[in-house]
Amino acid sequence: MVEPVVVVHGGAWAVPEELWDESLQGVKAAARRGYGASIHCYCGVLTAGGSSVDAAEASVVCLEDNPVFDAGTGSVLTFDEQVEMDAIIIDGTTMEAGAVGAIRNVLNPVKVARLVMEKTDHIMLVGDGANKFAAAHGVQEVDPEVLITSLARQTLAKYKKYTSTVYHLFNKTEKPETSGHETVGCVVVDREGHTSCATSTGGITAKMPGRVGDTPIVGAGGFADDQVGAVSTTGHGEAIMKACLARHITSVMGTGESVKSSIQNGLAHMESRIKGFGGAIAVSCKGEVGTHFSTPRMTWAYIQAGKLHYGIHPNQHVTEDL
Amino acid sequence: MVEPVVVVHGGAWAVPEELWDESLQGVKAAARRGYGASIHCYCGVLTAGGSSVDAAEASVVCLEDNPVFDAGTGSVLTFDEQVEMDAIIIDGTTMEAGAVGAIRNVLNPVKVARLVMEKTDHIMLVGDGANKFAAAHGVQEVDPEVLITSLARQTLAKYKKYTSTVYHLFNKTEKPETSGHETVGCVVVDREGHTSCATSTGGITAKMPGRVGDTPIVGAGGFADDQVGAVSTTGHGEAIMKACLARHITSVMGTGESVKSSIQNGLAHMESRIKGFGGAIAVSCKGEVGTHFSTPRMTWAYIQAGKLHYGIHPNQHVTEDL
Repeated sequence: MVEPVVVVHGGAWAVPEELWDESLQGVKAAARRGYGASIHCYCGVLTAGGSSVDAAEASVVCLEDNPVFDAGTGSVLTFDEQVEMDAIIIDGTTMEAGAVGAIRNVLNPVKVARLVMEKTDHIMLVGDGANKFAAAHGVQEVDPEVLITSLARQTLAKYKKYTSTVYHLFNKTEKPETSGHETVGCVVVDREGHTSCATSTGGITAKMPGRVGDTPIVGAGGFADDQVGAVSTTGHGEAIMKACLARHITSVMGTGESVKSSIQNGLAHMESRIKGFGGAIAVSCKGEVGTHFSTPRMTWAYIQAGKLHYGIHPNQHVTEDL
Repeated sequence: MVEPVVVVHGGAWAVPEELWDESLQGVKAAARRGYGASIHCYCGVLTAGGSSVDAAEASVVCLEDNPVFDAGTGSVLTFDEQVEMDAIIIDGTTMEAGAVGAIRNVLNPVKVARLVMEKTDHIMLVGDGANKFAAAHGVQEVDPEVLITSLARQTLAKYKKYTSTVYHLFNKTEKPETSGHETVGCVVVDREGHTSCATSTGGITAKMPGRVGDTPIVGAGGFADDQVGAVSTTGHGEAIMKACLARHITSVMGTGESVKSSIQNGLAHMESRIKGFGGAIAVSCKGEVGTHFSTPRMTWAYIQAGKLHYGIHPNQHVTEDL
């Protein structure tokens, strides 16, 4: 028997002070949501459902629905002022995975990712194909305006005002100071040691249409294997893709390193080899939790053994009774 | 100084007898094309260009243009009878990468992948966004009919005749016997130990619109890092994605294992954990070459030190003078 745990993150980046409180409340609520979904299973209240995958999905849906995060509602805008979202979910027991890239007009990309996992032979569907698949499975199409916040519009406007648009649209750019990341994610292990992960994002402000980042990539935005554990990452997507960050972290975990030092190892490699920064949450199949980030801040929270843990600043770790 | 080498593959699958000769001629020609492109650099004939990335691109363009392979011209068809292609290219020196997913109507997806690598901040562009980017960079749009061979049409017709179409479009399917893979790829190391990889595919017959497989995923379809070496994979895409096969193989290479046994390790893990089959080619930054496959056959060829090596059956290794 493993002490079950639900760990969530709300993105690794600078996180300006005006968003601290709302972001922390958001990750705490999402951890409760996922843990609550799990409890049904642990207590045997539900005979069907209530798996670690259900918990991961429930937490990420909660984060997608919260407009403070760059996922689902609140997603940042592409250069042409659209919302295009990426998401992944992985069942560590079977290593089955589902993902969507550059999907539009749906409230919860992670739900579509789960449909891809469960209803197709494929792992990843992108663009119009992903939207058509979602529609065929009864996922409601929403007006894109529903997903767009005033903060997302302001951030894109600021980006366009201070950057040379033509150059930045199709050429290499300096990273604009306004392009924060509030990608969200969750990792879970249940009492039987079954692990899962889910990650969801709107990507980066002013990204080119059709850009897919690390989030929906197995081994980059997430990884789960019951033989080791589960990881969800956040940060500079292209660096995370090059580093195969989630796979790197689980590989180190597999050598017997602690979960936290495995994350530190992965982030250190990404910084030294690729000059990239980010963060990750992870859980081992034994229920050991780790969170770490090389960015100024990352919001995270987890629930285990009746306690709620959370933090946003480096070395901050607050514990509350549930 | 490293003894430079160009290694190519033409896909790991059953490869029916009527395609053996054409496939072998194709990989031999592609190895020559890439090596020739490299020679310009090694001899100092060209002062610009001629990098390992140029060699990898040149080989894969040669394979994309050959209708016997499932990449570029000759790509298999989606369930709705379209060609949607995936490709990646990685420069192991910087670990910069470029990729396209579900791109249509271009002759050489690998060239667009290289443009993504060199002209954007991103790694992956998919669907319409990838096509718009290609057009903005002067890549000619072609009539999709140009890419479609009679073999591709026959293979899809056979699939549809023997499978329940509605069920298979949006539900889990048995792998049809007709869905072979002739994904193509190349790995290169030059005299300075600079590595690169490139992989390109039309995917699998009757795939759902928008399906992206392993090929354009860093760490799945390819990986390159001058500190270790370069890998290009082929086989069942979804299994390769779950296994992060290319990253797995380079990780094992990084421990000091031989290139061949690193590939064998990766394929054995994929078979035991995920029940997946495939093949890979790899080269270390020291110029050591390896090829291996767990499918019935894989066409491969390489050129090193004035010799052309090639094979298609297990344990077959033919050597010719250049």
